[in-house]
Amino acid sequence: MNKRVAAFGEVMMRMQVPGFDLLSQADTLKYSFSGTGVNVASALSRFGHTASLVTILPDNALGEAAKSYVQKLGITSQFITRQGQYLGMYFLENGFGVRSSRVTYTNRLGSTFNTASADAYDYDTIAQNIDAIHFCGIALSMNDGVRQHMVALANSVKKQGGLVIFDCNYRPSLWGEQSYERAKPYYEKMLTLSDIVFMNEKDALLTLAMQTQKTTRHDQLLDLLPQIAEKYAISVIAGTHRAINGDNTNSLRGFMLKNDQFTFADELVFSVYDRIGAGDAYASGIIHGQLTNMSASETVAFAASASMLAHTTVGDTPMSTIRDVEQAMQGFVKDVER
Amino acid sequence: MNKRVAAFGEVMMRMQVPGFDLLSQADTLKYSFSGTGVNVASALSRFGHTASLVTILPDNALGEAAKSYVQKLGITSQFITRQGQYLGMYFLENGFGVRSSRVTYTNRLGSTFNTASADAYDYDTIAQNIDAIHFCGIALSMNDGVRQHMVALANSVKKQGGLVIFDCNYRPSLWGEQSYERAKPYYEKMLTLSDIVFMNEKDALLTLAMQTQKTTRHDQLLDLLPQIAEKYAISVIAGTHRAINGDNTNSLRGFMLKNDQFTFADELVFSVYDRIGAGDAYASGIIHGQLTNMSASETVAFAASASMLAHTTVGDTPMSTIRDVEQAMQGFVKDVER
Amino acid sequence: MNKRVAAFGEVMMRMQVPGFDLLSQADTLKYSFSGTGVNVASALSRFGHTASLVTILPDNALGEAAKSYVQKLGITSQFITRQGQYLGMYFLENGFGVRSSRVTYTNRLGSTFNTASADAYDYDTIAQNIDAIHFCGIALSMNDGVRQHMVALANSVKKQGGLVIFDCNYRPSLWGEQSYERAKPYYEKMLTLSDIVFMNEKDALLTLAMQTQKTTRHDQLLDLLPQIAEKYAISVIAGTHRAINGDNTNSLRGFMLKNDQFTFADELVFSVYDRIGAGDAYASGIIHGQLTNMSASETVAFAASASMLAHTTVGDTPMSTIRDVEQAMQGFVKDVER
Amino acid sequence: MNKRVAAFGEVMMRMQVPGFDLLSQADTLKYSFSGTGVNVASALSRFGHTASLVTILPDNALGEAAKSYVQKLGITSQFITRQGQYLGMYFLENGFGVRSSRVTYTNRLGSTFNTASADAYDYDTIAQNIDAIHFCGIALSMNDGVRQHMVALANSVKKQGGLVIFDCNYRPSLWGEQSYERAKPYYEKMLTLSDIVFMNEKDALLTLAMQTQKTTRHDQLLDLLPQIAEKYAISVIAGTHRAINGDNTNSLRGFMLKNDQFTFADELVFSVYDRIGAGDAYASGIIHGQLTNMSASETVAFAASASMLAHTTVGDTPMSTIRDVEQAMQGFVKDVER
Amino acid sequence: MNKRVAAFGEVMMRMQVPGFDLLSQADTLKYSFSGTGVNVASALSRFGHTASLVTILPDNALGEAAKSYVQKLGITSQFITRQGQYLGMYFLENGFGVRSSRVTYTNRLGSTFNTASADAYDYDTIAQNIDAIHFCGIALSMNDGVRQHMVALANSVKKQGGLVIFDCNYRPSLWGEQSYERAKPYYEKMLTLSDIVFMNEKDALLTLAMQTQKTTRHDQLLDLLPQIAEKYAISVIAGTHRAINGDNTNSLRGFMLKNDQFTFADELVFSVYDRIGAGDAYASGIIHGQLTNMSASETVAFAASASMLAHTTVGDTPMSTIRDVEQAMQGFVKDVER
Amino acid sequence: MNKRVAAFGEVMMRMQVPGFDLLSQADTLKYSFSGTGVNVASALSRFGHTASLVTILPDNALGEAAKSYVQKLGITSQFITRQGQYLGMYFLENGFGVRSSRVTYTNRLGSTFNTASADAYDYDTIAQNIDAIHFCGIALSMNDGVRQHMVALANSVKKQGGLVIFDCNYRPSLWGEQSYERAKPYYEKMLTLSDIVFMNEKDALLTLAMQTQKTTRHDQLLDLLPQIAEKYAISVIAGTHRAINGDNTNSLRGFMLKNDQFTFADELVFSVYDRIGAGDAYASGIIHGQLTNMSASETVAFAASASMLAHTTVGDTPMSTIRDVEQAMQGFVKDVER
Repeated sequence: MNKRVAAFGEVMMRMQVPGFDLLSQADTLKYSFSGTGVNVASALSRFGHTASLVTILPDNALGEAAKSYVQKLGITSQFITRQGQYLGMYFLENGFGVRSSRVTYTNRLGSTFNTASADAYDYDTIAQNIDAIHFCGIALSMNDGVRQHMVALANSVKKQGGLVIFDCNYRPSLWGEQSYERAKPYYEKMLTLSDIVFMNEKDALLTLAMQTQKTTRHDQLLDLLPQIAEKYAISVIAGTHRAINGDNTNSLRGFMLKNDQFTFADELVFSVYDRIGAGDAYASGIIHGQLTNMSASETVAFAASASMLAHTTVGDTPMSTIRDVEQAMQGFVKDVER
Repeated sequence: MNKRVAAFGEVMMRMQVPGFDLLSQADTLKYSFSGTGVNVASALSRFGHTASLVTILPDNALGEAAKSYVQKLGITSQFITRQGQYLGMYFLENGFGVRSSRVTYTNRLGSTFNTASADAYDYDTIAQNIDAIHFCGIALSMNDGVRQHMVALANSVKKQGGLVIFDCNYRPSLWGEQSYERAKPYYEKMLTLSDIVFMNEKDALLTLAMQTQKTTRHDQLLDLLPQIAEKYAISVIAGTHRAINGDNTNSLRGFMLKNDQFTFADELVFSVYDRIGAGDAYASGIIHGQLTNMSASETVAFAASASMLAHTTVGDTPMSTIRDVEQAMQGFVKDVER
Repeated sequence: MNKRVAAFGEVMMRMQVPGFDLLSQADTLKYSFSGTGVNVASALSRFGHTASLVTILPDNALGEAAKSYVQKLGITSQFITRQGQYLGMYFLENGFGVRSSRVTYTNRLGSTFNTASADAYDYDTIAQNIDAIHFCGIALSMNDGVRQHMVALANSVKKQGGLVIFDCNYRPSLWGEQSYERAKPYYEKMLTLSDIVFMNEKDALLTLAMQTQKTTRHDQLLDLLPQIAEKYAISVIAGTHRAINGDNTNSLRGFMLKNDQFTFADELVFSVYDRIGAGDAYASGIIHGQLTNMSASETVAFAASASMLAHTTVGDTPMSTIRDVEQAMQGFVKDVER
Repeated sequence: MNKRVAAFGEVMMRMQVPGFDLLSQADTLKYSFSGTGVNVASALSRFGHTASLVTILPDNALGEAAKSYVQKLGITSQFITRQGQYLGMYFLENGFGVRSSRVTYTNRLGSTFNTASADAYDYDTIAQNIDAIHFCGIALSMNDGVRQHMVALANSVKKQGGLVIFDCNYRPSLWGEQSYERAKPYYEKMLTLSDIVFMNEKDALLTLAMQTQKTTRHDQLLDLLPQIAEKYAISVIAGTHRAINGDNTNSLRGFMLKNDQFTFADELVFSVYDRIGAGDAYASGIIHGQLTNMSASETVAFAASASMLAHTTVGDTPMSTIRDVEQAMQGFVKDVER
Repeated sequence: MNKRVAAFGEVMMRMQVPGFDLLSQADTLKYSFSGTGVNVASALSRFGHTASLVTILPDNALGEAAKSYVQKLGITSQFITRQGQYLGMYFLENGFGVRSSRVTYTNRLGSTFNTASADAYDYDTIAQNIDAIHFCGIALSMNDGVRQHMVALANSVKKQGGLVIFDCNYRPSLWGEQSYERAKPYYEKMLTLSDIVFMNEKDALLTLAMQTQKTTRHDQLLDLLPQIAEKYAISVIAGTHRAINGDNTNSLRGFMLKNDQFTFADELVFSVYDRIGAGDAYASGIIHGQLTNMSASETVAFAASASMLAHTTVGDTPMSTIRDVEQAMQGFVKDVER
Repeated sequence: MNKRVAAFGEVMMRMQVPGFDLLSQADTLKYSFSGTGVNVASALSRFGHTASLVTILPDNALGEAAKSYVQKLGITSQFITRQGQYLGMYFLENGFGVRSSRVTYTNRLGSTFNTASADAYDYDTIAQNIDAIHFCGIALSMNDGVRQHMVALANSVKKQGGLVIFDCNYRPSLWGEQSYERAKPYYEKMLTLSDIVFMNEKDALLTLAMQTQKTTRHDQLLDLLPQIAEKYAISVIAGTHRAINGDNTNSLRGFMLKNDQFTFADELVFSVYDRIGAGDAYASGIIHGQLTNMSASETVAFAASASMLAHTTVGDTPMSTIRDVEQAMQGFVKDVER
């Protein structure tokens, strides 16, 4: 039942100051490579699928390091092109308590990925060799070139009968001035092409500018998402409600809307080590559930536990196997497993 | 009043991934050497006794490193033999929150210690040079060769008038199929030879297959342990009830049964850094109390505080001095001691 | 509105065992350089002032390293003299939970700073080039030589019309036998010379041997500090009430007495990473407020937030900018700032 | 012209003490995973081929780490089976000058690879999906189980028309008593099955017990290898003469015998960082030359330069690309390439 | 006799893989900040001058870290502006023996420094507060904006009576196609404005397209440089002839042309740790000699030894004091100085 | 034939900057504990003797760390007293090539060892439990208190029939003004008490102010040492001639004078990693040879090889076993020993 899944997206170099030092205090960085596509493909690889990344990496030592890294995560590199010179990067300083973590980007828009030429990807070959493809809203925010690649590739996959998956993943800071208005048409285009979509009521209210009489997040969700599913003919919409608690724990409740039916996972509460990438773990769990025909309730429970574990894992990228997730679903924590 | 105490047991190499990375994420290991015998001998050395280890280490660079390490802990190496090539090892990946720590062993049964020949130890010389000896249930689970050494050495010490101490330390995974039934006769043999025993009601119910009408742990303890003390003529039985709380704290209550009298320490609640070896710290505290004629209530309070501190210490091995334990018993925590 | 502020004090080398190991377990130290003067000057530099340090550093590799380090913190080195051979040092082992952190000093009294000759500083040149100077009670405890420098320099600054600031910072262990009695006259001398003083009711009761009928800390504060302000003609007295809570959080409430008026900041509760130097951050916040004519309530709120952030920062020395403090004053914590 | 090449062999965990400390001085290890098969497959992957590893890794955290590591090197994991619990390991202490490096093995014969069952590999599926397979003498020395897998797999590949490559790689210490006599029949069997063989005159004299009147290494080579090529119908025999010079440099001269013709590379002299795996780099260069129809002189020059670069590379595994090797062949060294 | 010297130039973040790993092998980087201006200002600060840097750093955590770093080096930050978001960066992989070190740049032209607006620097204020300013050919290669700043600032300094110093520092890769022709007019402009210039015969032949009948480097030098000094009215031209020897040593011979007189330093031969920045050390030595009226022969000897020491120092930036250089000039090496 | 040997001397904390950074560049130190006594006792422990250290360590965390460290080296801690607060320390910055290593001391004379009271050691108990004791000239240079302990302890050992060993180990910088004259009477006193002495002709000429007509080191040695042996009734005088060569190698020739007979070892030439402590390794080799009745030629060969290996070892303290030394004496270096 294992599937061939690709993820389209940029690989970013993450350079993290170890411990809790600031960049102006330390002299060492730990580096890794990540991105929504990397995270999703890595998670699906650990769930037993053949997962590949559709991206462009520079043809130099940084690109070589990035390629090695994603291969280490179990991702197939057959759709990785090498050209150009620049890689998107960010620096991460860990916060502590009331001091937030801080991210500083380099000039991402000049990266090899974000300046790829129109013929950089062979859409049809990719589409013929996969069962599903994952896109995300971060790539959508970059520029017209990237957006054209996304639409063209989604069309090719659709034509070949593959599943198109889209994670709204809206980040206001990436869209600049009047961000919601600028983003809306591109989001609508992607929704039209998608079979599985990740979003919640905030995307409906802000990005799609929908309106509702409801006042609670839960009621807004129940009101708005079925309208979206119908309007854009989306089979599955899934997402989470997440809360940051005062004591370094998070609360997470996953949901899925399928065949007009909402299914909610139990709320999970847990300590957080590194929350970056935990949303991608949730998405990967839902995708895995759909690709392997799990029931709706199994799917949301699996995805929520996968996301919970990703909060306890070093780095952006989910590292859990099916065995790990299933054990976490049983809710029993040993202090040492031996 | 300081005594000469030996501990019989295997030295294991502990190789720990720093931070919270998995083995598949990291490239560095921190190593140390430990084992129940190492932990108990180290703790007793810090309490002022002359503590030695009865063990076999390979005659190569690993054995040299292990010997250096236990010497560093203050353990006398006079009863350490060097032969063979292999050392037991385990890898430790630290868990975080809902993700458990994980231990992966190498082929321990092939170690120099577990394949020692029948004449590997000079029981009588050892017995003549010590006041007490400590054994534990982990060594008992290994194989017949190790078990024969344990019984023979315990007999020699008993004959010389020394104290025999046994920590049940039952680990089901080490006994394989039908583990309790397999283990029972060997445990009974050791109990017959022992003066001080570490156990609680679970050992009675599971390993010794005893029965009780009582339903709470506390009542079962009060019911069963006096029967054991009488049946096997054991002077002192001691142990703890420990609970893992949700907020990364543990609760610990120590007890001791001596002269038909139970003494309980106050329950302690504390944050946990590394709980491996904390049971050995408790045992060492009780042994120290007995060797230095502390009262029962002093003994359990001292042992419980020693165990509490061991939960806050890096590595398997207790590092606290009498001064440290006594300060902890006063229950006042300064943020910086200067 | 930026000012030229100097701080007088010793630079200490801080050598910290990484993680939670003891000195007897580790083999590596992380080093930095700090001291009350360093902390205050660094904080004020980040708040936009020209901050210098009045001190003596040895004329060798250690002095070179210390000088480089304080320059890195943004401190001007024009009043740093280089002579002699020795630097004060301390070793820091991090505690965990019920196990306290532990500081071990080297022979501090033999340091270049504490053995400086009578003509080591050019009081008048310093006084002519600054608007304010900060002293602290730790330097006052050292020896007569240091105390004479403090009084002479304070007098010079006063004569030039500069502000004299004194942080009582009383440490009993530094004053030896009958410490309060020995310290009292020196403290009184400094109070007489000072415009801004950091202290709370404990300094009044213990160091100054004052008496009160009041029983709560708050009431004692309200009773005693106005008497001190009047007696010694001090414009501003400020300080904090701090409590260590059981769950690794601290509570902090800042206050300021000015023009017979007490102003209190809201109590802040927060997790603590490294509390050394957090008092200096509070002092720096008050000084900044006074130098820039902030209102009393703004000043205590700013100082309390600056101190709170210093509890979350690696090392002794505050690292927050005005932007950081103002953001923390708004009380909203993002998990990642990007 | 890129080919599908597999390498059969064990993955070993290499745990290296950083710097020049002994195991008894340090507390940290750097780990990686290697083996002749890993080295050859990695090198060929960097030369543009699809390289896979035929091996068995334990089904635990160590196996996961090993699998991730070889994927990182660019090796396809489709023929890696996961079962059992143990991985071969060795510890490496770096020597300096007159103090040799020292390797300490764990119990390698108990590893998952060396205890694989008779049906562990699907010979035919593997053979149908590759163009060539590489074996080595280290695996041959292990036990009958491993030897049977080697012969069966070589037969399958031969039947499918694939190339069989064998590196004699004789290590006396692995064959125990009367090692040459014990090894001879197994070597002869592999030679019979092989198309490309790596060896030199020492293998002929010692392992195959051949005799010659010649006295220099060069003359013995010229005398003996053609006899072997003829007797076992081997198309290509290649190897090196290597010398350790006093000044931390090595001298290396590569050769190849093909169609009764010897071709020698120029002797290279170079500084050595880590020589483990440099022989595998040479073999990979020859294989690459043969798979891509390079001329004999190009092939030996390429292989010798690849081997030279592997001496300058951290770790066992060659990391050079074709571009790197070609640049090294031009013999010009820049101090910084920018 | 100490002077106020500024250096104009970009601060680059240097991220170096520790040891000899490639970026694709490691996961850690050591970072520092450097650039020709940083190196020259740091060296002159250690020689007792007040050295400042004229540059622009981004107004974020990276800019803060860069500013802290250059302050640590003893550089005054009064002429450092903070604006924009991007910092030039490069990655450095250390070579070994025949394997060259490798530098990979990020998109440097988009940096805050290279995109500074026309009014970014206050030329006159800077010029009024310094005695000399240093420029270099790397900045000259960037773009018209940077070149306009250089010329305008040089003019201001000249007008105020300050010295203008220019290091040709020609890097072909930075000038793109037809690099010498493109560079020539800009170099000529800078030479016209300069009092002290660093160059050798290669700059004359290639960048200035001069011609000579002479064939050796030495003779070409003697022939061409006096023509340049005369044509552009340059008081001092200095430079080095450097050779990379086979055994990890370099040979260096410094020269200076002043008042139509060539002075040569003795050739130095020495082992090399990190050669980046060693040319800047030479330049700093010459500048120091000129600013402090050393004789020509003292000056070249001092500069050559300063450069030699910079080859033995970690990082790009010279760290030697006058005492260090003078000791090195005596040519006696102790194994340990204590 | 193993003996009980004690060494009297101070334990110093060595804090070394890793790599080749200066203290002003780095932020991390590697620490260990050493001293001539530590080095000699450690070496003799590895040669199979029971080696103890007669010293005083502070009663705090630093003393605990020092004690653990020397135990790790195999040294028995029975004659280590714990009192006072201060430990001697030094910082080490590694040189490279023409840049010398640099040592910076803390205030050593205030250490617990150097301020020990008159009754700090129980001379007779120590003397009764050992066969030989080692002293060195570094301790002799400290102050009268230490010198009185040395003489008293040497007398006690002599009275009990033990061997007294003295290593002249003259360091001019430790004796201050007119150092040779000040030192001479103390050296003469120790020579009078000693059976085995380490020195060479320089000690004779400078410290003892002897005169000779001979001009070469070798001839001076032959002339002067027999006079010393006779005058002070010394059984064995041994030492080395060492030369620093230009290419990071050292040359070493060991000698021994016994029964009026000189024996010389072959000159050894070898690369140097860390030369501190290599003289102590030579002394330990000679002592071992004498204690185990090796012939003179065996003894000097053994000692010279032990010293050579100590030059290749990390840290001050020799780590070689008899097996290591014997292997080095055979003069064959393998690149990897496996």
